[in-house]
Amino acid sequence: MRDAYVGVMKGVMLGIAPQARLVDVTHSVAPQDVRAAAYTLLSAYRYFPDGTIFCCVVDPGVGSARRAVAVQVDTDESTRYFFVCPDNGLLTPILKHDSVRAVHTLDSSRYRLARVSATFHGRDVFAPAAAHLATGVTLEALGTAVAPHALKHIDWPQPERNAAGWRATIMHIDHFGNLITNLRGCEVDPPLERWSVTLGNSSVRGVSDTFADVEMGAPVAYVGSSGFLEIAVRNGSAQNTWHACVGDRVELEKV
Amino acid sequence: MRDAYVGVMKGVMLGIAPQARLVDVTHSVAPQDVRAAAYTLLSAYRYFPDGTIFCCVVDPGVGSARRAVAVQVDTDESTRYFFVCPDNGLLTPILKHDSVRAVHTLDSSRYRLARVSATFHGRDVFAPAAAHLATGVTLEALGTAVAPHALKHIDWPQPERNAAGWRATIMHIDHFGNLITNLRGCEVDPPLERWSVTLGNSSVRGVSDTFADVEMGAPVAYVGSSGFLEIAVRNGSAQNTWHACVGDRVELEKV
Amino acid sequence: MRDAYVGVMKGVMLGIAPQARLVDVTHSVAPQDVRAAAYTLLSAYRYFPDGTIFCCVVDPGVGSARRAVAVQVDTDESTRYFFVCPDNGLLTPILKHDSVRAVHTLDSSRYRLARVSATFHGRDVFAPAAAHLATGVTLEALGTAVAPHALKHIDWPQPERNAAGWRATIMHIDHFGNLITNLRGCEVDPPLERWSVTLGNSSVRGVSDTFADVEMGAPVAYVGSSGFLEIAVRNGSAQNTWHACVGDRVELEKV
Repeated sequence: MRDAYVGVMKGVMLGIAPQARLVDVTHSVAPQDVRAAAYTLLSAYRYFPDGTIFCCVVDPGVGSARRAVAVQVDTDESTRYFFVCPDNGLLTPILKHDSVRAVHTLDSSRYRLARVSATFHGRDVFAPAAAHLATGVTLEALGTAVAPHALKHIDWPQPERNAAGWRATIMHIDHFGNLITNLRGCEVDPPLERWSVTLGNSSVRGVSDTFADVEMGAPVAYVGSSGFLEIAVRNGSAQNTWHACVGDRVELEKV
Repeated sequence: MRDAYVGVMKGVMLGIAPQARLVDVTHSVAPQDVRAAAYTLLSAYRYFPDGTIFCCVVDPGVGSARRAVAVQVDTDESTRYFFVCPDNGLLTPILKHDSVRAVHTLDSSRYRLARVSATFHGRDVFAPAAAHLATGVTLEALGTAVAPHALKHIDWPQPERNAAGWRATIMHIDHFGNLITNLRGCEVDPPLERWSVTLGNSSVRGVSDTFADVEMGAPVAYVGSSGFLEIAVRNGSAQNTWHACVGDRVELEKV
Repeated sequence: MRDAYVGVMKGVMLGIAPQARLVDVTHSVAPQDVRAAAYTLLSAYRYFPDGTIFCCVVDPGVGSARRAVAVQVDTDESTRYFFVCPDNGLLTPILKHDSVRAVHTLDSSRYRLARVSATFHGRDVFAPAAAHLATGVTLEALGTAVAPHALKHIDWPQPERNAAGWRATIMHIDHFGNLITNLRGCEVDPPLERWSVTLGNSSVRGVSDTFADVEMGAPVAYVGSSGFLEIAVRNGSAQNTWHACVGDRVELEKV
């Protein structure tokens, strides 16, 4: 947001689709961090209305041969989402749950800006494609069909069941300093208060329902708002308390 | 804004109220800082149109027994504002000026998301309530009526008149480093240039009309854009110059 | 964005022009940095639709005698843009390319807020003027006509042709750390790979088409998305690598 890049993309979109409603999901993914962008999309997309078009431009491969694609994803609840993005694995965790209905490359010069730069496909390729979709242009019109299984994937750690319980991985640290793992609360045998959660050399006894179950400043493990096991410090920062990083392992054992 | 939390709330809102106009007031209130959020609302709300719904989620008590409420406030100019927020004192300074018309809790499951998490009521409770209000749902429909006097308040320092003049308190420091007090300019006897303003062990002689009355880099006291006495350094930072903090006292004396 | 200032301006605008579409270009120009704001506008404006109104409030002179103006600019492609801004040189680089159709001061009290503060003309003068333009009010109605040549300009370095090749200047450093010069790629004799680009005491051989032409972590010179010569480090920061600053000189020589 420091530069005008995002505003320019919106200018391009509104020139094509004046009635489109634009929502910023985030512009704070670290440059080129596809994994963090993938987590962000995973945590967000299901709360948007049917037919939402996500324009995703975390794109370390801009200017290389990586494909630009538009992807239609259908959920169990028969909601349709569209993703306009580089084919670099951004959709990896979403595609573990939902099925791809169609993938098309963004080939058609009709739905790009007249002059496509080598470095800013957000403005020249992705924004125009997303805006044209918003006006009713079909996925098929944007370019060549691609087989869904040909989409690129990135490594996405899965929680591991073991003799003692579970080994999870910290996938994201939010701006409160809360540590969000890849283990869904619904996978853990109830009652949740019977599990102890270990990170580094300290443990939290019991998975709580919410922050407010512990004192101010105390650590707490709980199932967070995205359904995943999280570790926090009430009204504090678990990231600072544990010096935790994305990728750190978290162990769950029965108390 | 680093995380997708805000974008997700907007996704929820637009799913319910596709025509709603969404404006970000700020997302940079320090986590859990109810006082700063209250100041921000106070400085902003009167510039929004009649009928504006403010969705305020600075909520250290999420998951505790604190109430979630929708509040209608009527101003002297018969403008109506709606606030959808935790009942934690966010409205304290606004309610010193304006009168509460009605308060309802956000009880009705009809106007929440189907599944309410224990940690993200912004998404699950406040955003849906605000969006339903925007579509024409009444305050009464959202839940049980609460007596206006039962709303929680926080401590909100008032400027004190004393023998020498006034003792004010710094309530907010903006991103320019300007120090904003709780003393309204209209409370101080004119002419304003006859007052000396002291912070720590240095003073500014005279309350000016504007920054431009002093040289670049010079300190200046003036009545700011919200009507309150402020201290600034022209094209510099008063916060850095004075090492000032919110809560610091400012003394006014006749020169 | 930390304070409510931007949100308040939007509240004012939507009170006047409820149907206006609002896009944030940036709020991260350093306070009072007119040159950076001018660069940002230059890089952005042409991507917005015909008739776009830019409300620009980088205004070190607020409260002084500097004029507030609305400017209509017509481009070669007969696109009309409107700029509502202080007359402090913000439009300097744009006016090197495009012609001013009309300039009017923001005098008319009818199109300001009822009470104009001495320090926040963004809210009280610029936002209302921009919003009234959006509802169809004419430029002429806003205030007195000003001769286009009377607009203030700031120093805006031009690239210099010399015996060896070109001397350019770094005009902007974006948040990726890419260094953007004032030399348009189309001014340099092809083939571009025949030019060596020197900054400080190190050089990049050849101007590439895009980042992806070099290895990860390698420096690269290329014509960027705004058409200007840029220096980057692929998936790194050229700003950190070179300790570069805005204003630094860049030399181009034939290899």
